[in-house]
Amino acid sequence: MSETERITLYAAVDSPFPHRVRLALEEAGAKYDIIWIDLLNKPEWYEQKVYPNGGRVPLLVYGGPELHPDESPSPAAAKIVESGIILEFLADLFPSAHLLPSDPVVRAHARLFAHTVDTALLPAFMAFVFLRAPAAGVLAVLDTLQGMLPPAEGYVAGAWSLADAAFVPILIRWDFHLRTGLGTFEPEVLQEARDAFGSPRFERLRKYLADNAARPSWAKCYDEEVLKEKMVQRLERFRKTGIISSDFRVPVPGGAAAQ
Amino acid sequence: MSETERITLYAAVDSPFPHRVRLALEEAGAKYDIIWIDLLNKPEWYEQKVYPNGGRVPLLVYGGPELHPDESPSPAAAKIVESGIILEFLADLFPSAHLLPSDPVVRAHARLFAHTVDTALLPAFMAFVFLRAPAAGVLAVLDTLQGMLPPAEGYVAGAWSLADAAFVPILIRWDFHLRTGLGTFEPEVLQEARDAFGSPRFERLRKYLADNAARPSWAKCYDEEVLKEKMVQRLERFRKTGIISSDFRVPVPGGAAAQ
Repeated sequence: MSETERITLYAAVDSPFPHRVRLALEEAGAKYDIIWIDLLNKPEWYEQKVYPNGGRVPLLVYGGPELHPDESPSPAAAKIVESGIILEFLADLFPSAHLLPSDPVVRAHARLFAHTVDTALLPAFMAFVFLRAPAAGVLAVLDTLQGMLPPAEGYVAGAWSLADAAFVPILIRWDFHLRTGLGTFEPEVLQEARDAFGSPRFERLRKYLADNAARPSWAKCYDEEVLKEKMVQRLERFRKTGIISSDFRVPVPGGAAAQ
Repeated sequence: MSETERITLYAAVDSPFPHRVRLALEEAGAKYDIIWIDLLNKPEWYEQKVYPNGGRVPLLVYGGPELHPDESPSPAAAKIVESGIILEFLADLFPSAHLLPSDPVVRAHARLFAHTVDTALLPAFMAFVFLRAPAAGVLAVLDTLQGMLPPAEGYVAGAWSLADAAFVPILIRWDFHLRTGLGTFEPEVLQEARDAFGSPRFERLRKYLADNAARPSWAKCYDEEVLKEKMVQRLERFRKTGIISSDFRVPVPGGAAAQ
């Protein structure tokens, strides 16, 4: 990796988006520094000095000297934003890590998978956890994604790729919310989601999750206790500020297509 | 190009999305067939035999024998969907055409530009043309995109790239609607948009548009008379079916950020 410049990732433990980037960095064997941003108590310097008109995570700084919090990246460094774009950047930067397969058709399949995660799974998942949507929306998209995996075993594109980096942080959190019961859902909705995800219908997807959990990159990038702590704080904050009201309901994204 | 398989593109004259793909195919010097889909009178065989659960354009079929309308692609052929994913596929398939630059940082810039077109320009543009939104939303995003071009001349990534393929079909149509006056906007909104786009504020973007218009790929992929005919039909259809009502208003995407 000595041929690349210094990499600094601005990340937050409770966001799936920097989680995607960390997984890819670990799978590529990259050397990188992390600067942690507390999303529930965002430091002013982040938007002022690092990411104007955004202040989101992840942001990857490529090049320049070592960075400390409260410091602007060097003008000579490149700032790369948007998790999907950072993943493609890492595939380009570390070609020998094969973060994308070499066959153009299989690459397109991996990208369509990641696109489906972003445009269909994410809105359904966020609505389920934070906006009291029923589970059918998430389950319908998980069915679609499961159908895009190789039938018996392996990752989205056969070997592990950016498509897995894009998916796994959401799938981990889906499993996390079902197990911990943290979220805005009613008890019967939680039970329905647990029953469905634990049923034979999702056997292939559960194997996929277990296969990912067995990779060293998983443990490097995921601390469930820290996520739990942050999620409790976040839900408490939402309740206090009225972002979640007890009678708030939203339509189910993709719900009409559910079984 | 003899090393690649047969390429068939399902396209429609009045959609900017297959237009993106055609521009990239032309710039790559690719050999390809087109099957035209009339979006205002969509043939049943398209969703039944070609693109189940979608029926959208573009769809690119890669491989298999020559295709005719009303015919299913060979099971051995790959079907690639979503214009952004097809563009990346073409960059992968025709590496010597350099549809993406070689520097990973510049590639990320090109991808962020295309991402901004999709997530910010498109919704603002559609709202302006079809939903009577004010022009401020589009103008604000065009300002941002103009600021991402090289200051004096050249394309998004210096040389022409997929980012230009993603942008130009929308920019052409913005210019088309301003010139023809076709759309749901009020006369004073149209005049405001024309004045703004013709002002020194957008000089660099107008040069960019003219530079693209001078490329052979432009004339190959754009027939203004046909677009005009289709747009008149589409607006008429929308009016008849009540999709556009005379008092319908929507919030402006990005409008709050407009100057």
